[in-house]
Amino acid sequence: MEQKDYRPMWKELGLNLEGHDQLLAVLGKAYKDIYLSQENRPKGMQYLDFVISEAHGLRIEELMETKKKGNKVVGTFCVYVPEELILAVGGTCVGLCAGAEIGIDEAEKVLPRNTCALIKSFMGFKLAGLCPYIQASDLVVGETTCDGKKKAYEILNDYKETYVMEIPQMKTERDRALWRGEVVQFKEKVEEIAGRRITPENLRQGIKTANDKRRALQRLSTLRKAIPSPISGLDALLVNQIAFYDDPLRFTKSIQALCDELEDRAKNGVGVVKNRTPRILMSGSPMAVPNWKIPFIVETSGAIVVAEESCVGERSTRDLVKEDGKTLDDMIEAIVDRYMKIDCACFTPNEERIGHIRDLAKEFKADGVIHYNIQFCTPYSMEAYKVEKGLQQKGIPTLKIESDYGMEDAGQLKTRIEAFLEMVRG
Amino acid sequence: MEQKDYRPMWKELGLNLEGHDQLLAVLGKAYKDIYLSQENRPKGMQYLDFVISEAHGLRIEELMETKKKGNKVVGTFCVYVPEELILAVGGTCVGLCAGAEIGIDEAEKVLPRNTCALIKSFMGFKLAGLCPYIQASDLVVGETTCDGKKKAYEILNDYKETYVMEIPQMKTERDRALWRGEVVQFKEKVEEIAGRRITPENLRQGIKTANDKRRALQRLSTLRKAIPSPISGLDALLVNQIAFYDDPLRFTKSIQALCDELEDRAKNGVGVVKNRTPRILMSGSPMAVPNWKIPFIVETSGAIVVAEESCVGERSTRDLVKEDGKTLDDMIEAIVDRYMKIDCACFTPNEERIGHIRDLAKEFKADGVIHYNIQFCTPYSMEAYKVEKGLQQKGIPTLKIESDYGMEDAGQLKTRIEAFLEMVRG
Repeated sequence: MEQKDYRPMWKELGLNLEGHDQLLAVLGKAYKDIYLSQENRPKGMQYLDFVISEAHGLRIEELMETKKKGNKVVGTFCVYVPEELILAVGGTCVGLCAGAEIGIDEAEKVLPRNTCALIKSFMGFKLAGLCPYIQASDLVVGETTCDGKKKAYEILNDYKETYVMEIPQMKTERDRALWRGEVVQFKEKVEEIAGRRITPENLRQGIKTANDKRRALQRLSTLRKAIPSPISGLDALLVNQIAFYDDPLRFTKSIQALCDELEDRAKNGVGVVKNRTPRILMSGSPMAVPNWKIPFIVETSGAIVVAEESCVGERSTRDLVKEDGKTLDDMIEAIVDRYMKIDCACFTPNEERIGHIRDLAKEFKADGVIHYNIQFCTPYSMEAYKVEKGLQQKGIPTLKIESDYGMEDAGQLKTRIEAFLEMVRG
Repeated sequence: MEQKDYRPMWKELGLNLEGHDQLLAVLGKAYKDIYLSQENRPKGMQYLDFVISEAHGLRIEELMETKKKGNKVVGTFCVYVPEELILAVGGTCVGLCAGAEIGIDEAEKVLPRNTCALIKSFMGFKLAGLCPYIQASDLVVGETTCDGKKKAYEILNDYKETYVMEIPQMKTERDRALWRGEVVQFKEKVEEIAGRRITPENLRQGIKTANDKRRALQRLSTLRKAIPSPISGLDALLVNQIAFYDDPLRFTKSIQALCDELEDRAKNGVGVVKNRTPRILMSGSPMAVPNWKIPFIVETSGAIVVAEESCVGERSTRDLVKEDGKTLDDMIEAIVDRYMKIDCACFTPNEERIGHIRDLAKEFKADGVIHYNIQFCTPYSMEAYKVEKGLQQKGIPTLKIESDYGMEDAGQLKTRIEAFLEMVRG
């Protein structure tokens, strides 16, 4: 099938066409090597293959079309941005490019060298003109989840207006009040850019759409408890990654169909690996497309990833917004409550996260946990100490890994991961 | 003069006596080399020389004595902790050890290697049993000013109970409400540990004592505007450092006496350097005792530091608490207001800091600004970009330096600083 020529659209969006061609070539090859080389993939993954192949094409075209109808596109970097409010006004919420080592030279002109790869990446994508999502966004929303992002948004704002939500650092009543104020203010901002009011009717629908997406992802997660898992960790990660930028209704339907297939597999004992393959829980910093390095190494070293304790994973899907609210106020309160449950490492203390990781390890019958943090990601790298201690107390083997988006350490990581798997096998 | 044997006291405090002896020997030598080698020092610095020589001796003995009387000692790491409330109940507020490369091996067992030197230092001091201040503290107070400290306090809490104040990240009315709640809760905590109520009378006195200290430091700062400066940057930094742990009344009196002497010097055109010596404004991460590396290099390279835009400097002394409050509520509001003015890089946006630095550079007739950040201090290292840009717009030469507490980079720093001074001289 020949692909459509999107270059006029990319040009209109102000992308650096030459660099963008190179990027797509590299991504296409990486996807082929990492994803399409997998054996025994569920048929339902074909939809995801298609979405990823059209991530900078058809999907952007869709965004441009919805924009032409007067709907707004909101770009985000974090699971704290309440998608429900954006959906309520007919808007689209998209995660922005942040997972590839790109535009580093440009990024390092404005950021310290020892900035985490994710932050360098989003800055590099913007400065090098390589992310169609940020170009298509009517509003970019940042948040104060870590020092690095908090300060980087001030600089990003020089290149693209960035609205920042303040995330509290504890979970007291005062913090909830602060967060409630942020949600209400964001609601007003969304109404302002959309030129539409949020009503109980459209917000109810927004909540349902976001919840339905989460329910589909929860179902996918649950199906991975089967032994052997009917889907690879790489494929499940991809689903969670694409959840951030695909059309939510179509995505939900496609993932439910994928889950039907996985349910059949599980019933018939069909998995992507052998029964006794070591089961790994990944935990830590989020993995944005195309940051597939660690699960790729894990799954080509004879193990399978069965869950992701991460923002691109359980953290963004665990909790639903209560759907029984009658008034706008009820629904806002329900949104506030739901987002206050997020156990991001930006909170202090954050003991509930340790509990969640232990629970996941148990529920998914994980043989070991790999705690991954992006280098210079202070919250997760520091919290790794408590995570490891908490898992040790339960006798769960843990491997701490720190890495960036480069491939220089791939060999060394493989050696360490293989040694860990050897130990886990016992 | 023979020094008293404090070893029984140190032993009682649980210090590692052998390591502590080594530490004092190293510090004593560093102080001699860096401070006592200076020429033409004001006589009033003798008091500071004495205080530093007794920092782990007489001062700790004083703390132990006040504790015996039922008064409390509160250890802190940040200018956000409202000293006024501690003084109100007859308590003593002390800054904790965080300025030396010490206990690194122990610290790196619980912290990532790429943690800033200040955080590694306070953890190292505690784990290696080398800080008499934390040992003597009845309460250790942390705060959420950066990811590194926020998460490190969770770990420190395993070794010494640490009470954490939440610092907001913006300056809206919501943030003020959050901070007000934190101040009120801290007041209750202080009352609880002291077993005494805070009253309008004792709080009025606490506010006055803290303000008087700030007024003395403001006077010292103003006197450094004289050309040539009547005091070295190293000595002025030391005064600001000692402000965090000396007895406030005695300290204020001694600094006012020092200022009398400096005033005479200024009147008579007596300075510590020649008239045309380049004047440098230091800006950035705080320098805790004995982190004297950068000003030492600057001042032994033919320049003088005339002001410190830092928590150990202008940031902790710029603003006073209003003293006209009648009721306890008035005073609490005044404290809340005062601390909300602090322009720490933890805030976003933090444009007022850029304005403050520009103002300082102008008022102090600085020929250049050296922006220093401790390596891996994300807030200040990232904000350096905006600082440099803001100063460039005013034509003020700026040098950005990143360093830790080690001496390995001293030669390289000297080369860079000398080149900068050469350029500044024009």
